[in-house]
Amino acid sequence: MKILVLNSGSSSLKYQLFDMPNESPICSGLVDRIGLDQSTLKHKIFKDGGEEVFQISQPIKDHEEGLQLITDLLVDGEKGVLTSMEEVEAIGHRVVHGGDQFASTTIITDEVKQKIESLIELAPLHNPPNLLGIKVAERIFPKAKQVAVFDTAFHQSMPEKAYRYAIPNEFYTEMGIRAYGFHGSSHQYVSKIAFELLNKPDAKIITIHLGNGSSMAAVKGGKSMDNTMGLGPMGGLVMGTRCGDIDPSIIFYLLNQKGFSPKEVNELLNKKSGLLGMTGSSDMRDVKNAIEKGNKNATLAYEIYAYRIQKYIGAFTAVMNGLDAIVFTAGIGENDPDMRAAVCKNMDYFGIQVDNTANQKHSSEIREINPSSSKTKVFVIPTNEELEIGQQTYRIVKGEKI
Amino acid sequence: MKILVLNSGSSSLKYQLFDMPNESPICSGLVDRIGLDQSTLKHKIFKDGGEEVFQISQPIKDHEEGLQLITDLLVDGEKGVLTSMEEVEAIGHRVVHGGDQFASTTIITDEVKQKIESLIELAPLHNPPNLLGIKVAERIFPKAKQVAVFDTAFHQSMPEKAYRYAIPNEFYTEMGIRAYGFHGSSHQYVSKIAFELLNKPDAKIITIHLGNGSSMAAVKGGKSMDNTMGLGPMGGLVMGTRCGDIDPSIIFYLLNQKGFSPKEVNELLNKKSGLLGMTGSSDMRDVKNAIEKGNKNATLAYEIYAYRIQKYIGAFTAVMNGLDAIVFTAGIGENDPDMRAAVCKNMDYFGIQVDNTANQKHSSEIREINPSSSKTKVFVIPTNEELEIGQQTYRIVKGEKI
Repeated sequence: MKILVLNSGSSSLKYQLFDMPNESPICSGLVDRIGLDQSTLKHKIFKDGGEEVFQISQPIKDHEEGLQLITDLLVDGEKGVLTSMEEVEAIGHRVVHGGDQFASTTIITDEVKQKIESLIELAPLHNPPNLLGIKVAERIFPKAKQVAVFDTAFHQSMPEKAYRYAIPNEFYTEMGIRAYGFHGSSHQYVSKIAFELLNKPDAKIITIHLGNGSSMAAVKGGKSMDNTMGLGPMGGLVMGTRCGDIDPSIIFYLLNQKGFSPKEVNELLNKKSGLLGMTGSSDMRDVKNAIEKGNKNATLAYEIYAYRIQKYIGAFTAVMNGLDAIVFTAGIGENDPDMRAAVCKNMDYFGIQVDNTANQKHSSEIREINPSSSKTKVFVIPTNEELEIGQQTYRIVKGEKI
Repeated sequence: MKILVLNSGSSSLKYQLFDMPNESPICSGLVDRIGLDQSTLKHKIFKDGGEEVFQISQPIKDHEEGLQLITDLLVDGEKGVLTSMEEVEAIGHRVVHGGDQFASTTIITDEVKQKIESLIELAPLHNPPNLLGIKVAERIFPKAKQVAVFDTAFHQSMPEKAYRYAIPNEFYTEMGIRAYGFHGSSHQYVSKIAFELLNKPDAKIITIHLGNGSSMAAVKGGKSMDNTMGLGPMGGLVMGTRCGDIDPSIIFYLLNQKGFSPKEVNELLNKKSGLLGMTGSSDMRDVKNAIEKGNKNATLAYEIYAYRIQKYIGAFTAVMNGLDAIVFTAGIGENDPDMRAAVCKNMDYFGIQVDNTANQKHSSEIREINPSSSKTKVFVIPTNEELEIGQQTYRIVKGEKI
């Protein structure tokens, strides 16, 4: 069965085609700058263990045109990977915010679309393009099953004490203000692998997703018990441009004493903070180059970044009253051994240690980087949100309950 | 040596007179509703192991008149405890915000007053009345040494990675936006006692101050390494009316999507949240009564309150890479055995357990409530911020460096 995974952003369409159940990726790509100057499509075909990549630059006026271009490529006489677009039996859509309406992946119906629309207020930047992607896919692939996989769904198992805030109840009951948590497909994907590796039914795992956006989850017995994000994706860890946790007093200090507007403060904390605010670059590789050149702000940013992760390892160990493994994943988690070492330093109270050789070795494999004597496992597990979406889409299309 | 400790609020003057070095309190009291209708002075004299209390109700137009009234009482022919006001050799003033200018207690000079004034922007509700109290005391006690003891000073030992936020550097360098931490005199007082009880040079202690305002500190080898509050006293734990930690996205959601004004959101999170927002009362005793009556919101509030403390115990254990003792203090910490039990439940990973009998016993003594087998000590230590201020004032007046 061929399954297309679609991640539709405000001016982009990210896609990947899988052959199921063997989970092999057939092709993937990105349509970027939709409706803007210099739209592009980058397409990658996986063949005989290698990759063939090519790029098209042409005006792409909207998502419909973008998806049509992808479809044409999939069935292209020369470069195509399918004989007919009807081979695509299902499309798995990433939807960022499922509120507390969606605790799991679901087949898309009119009612589901209405609910996703009703959640736009909670995710004004993400849900509208996600919904647009669904509508376009329905038109172009009328026979395929459309499936929604929510970034928030995995965290719907959090207990109430973890997701409620200490604010008047009506802000929860009437406005839905609570912690939802994000990066669900990633936390679910890597924790599932760690769970299998540990082979222990109530395994207590902390997953550490460090990308441009970053978050951590406490996963006990396969269920998310807590995570570092909340109503939106601004809090918790230090990120590329987002501040992560911050004393709320600071927001009011800037508004009341310093004359900033709410929009300015929001932009400041969302787009000009994090690594960018502290070092001038949101890219961890630049931060590390700056550290090597003796830049003290970069060194401090790196320390704060690791310190915040360490504090959440402690907090989530308390949440689960134990710890079997921590898992590093996503761009920085998978590729920055120094950050992994910094996070694991002086954490032996938690049974956390890294084997320097295993940690430094560059690899794209699932690996264990703790010394064998270590009480807590330290895994590096490459994430694959697209595959997680593809797997869940496949299972639900087959009629499995997930 | 007689030392007067003064805590000057916007419409109140709290005071306590100590005989040093034996640390015995001579009298204490509160002038309340200064400049308002029905001003009162409540005065308590400690004598022969008992207390004599009396109250005066009369118009008290300003802090000067309030302090004069106190002074008159101290040297009153009948009820007085001093023969002359010149017996008061020093006055220790509580000052809430010392910014990063004051890492310890200091003799007040013109320069010190200027610095306290320059910090008003960071603590607009607290520093002005603190400063007023100093100026009034200088006029009424011209021969006494005036000493400032800062709520923030104890936390000045925090490392930079703990007190900096992931926001652009200039917000720190130019505006002083960083975590300061509060309740310093309380955390210092109780951690000092725990430190002596543990008799271990690098003892790792977490102090849990649970009053109307609440905070926790990580104290290693007698030094504060981190705390739950930040620039102001709004973040961290759930409090009587303050929200504690909250996803910053929520503030922008209320401002941008729900049409609240910054002032309304600030009031909401400062004065209408916490226990009050969740249960209708800011008083933990009311919350517990409601729980007994089966009120589910109250039960949830109690759970969230304990959960947040547990998470910080984990986080601070990570900060110190170890844990020797936790200390409960202040109103709720000293008097609510059920909250102590809730915090210590399912925390045996951290070596934390409570002995039920020892925990339930009502006492105003310093006590250890863990079973003897417990790896981590659980202390209840009544706080005494006034005595801490008195002790520090005495030491600095004697010429000790603190």
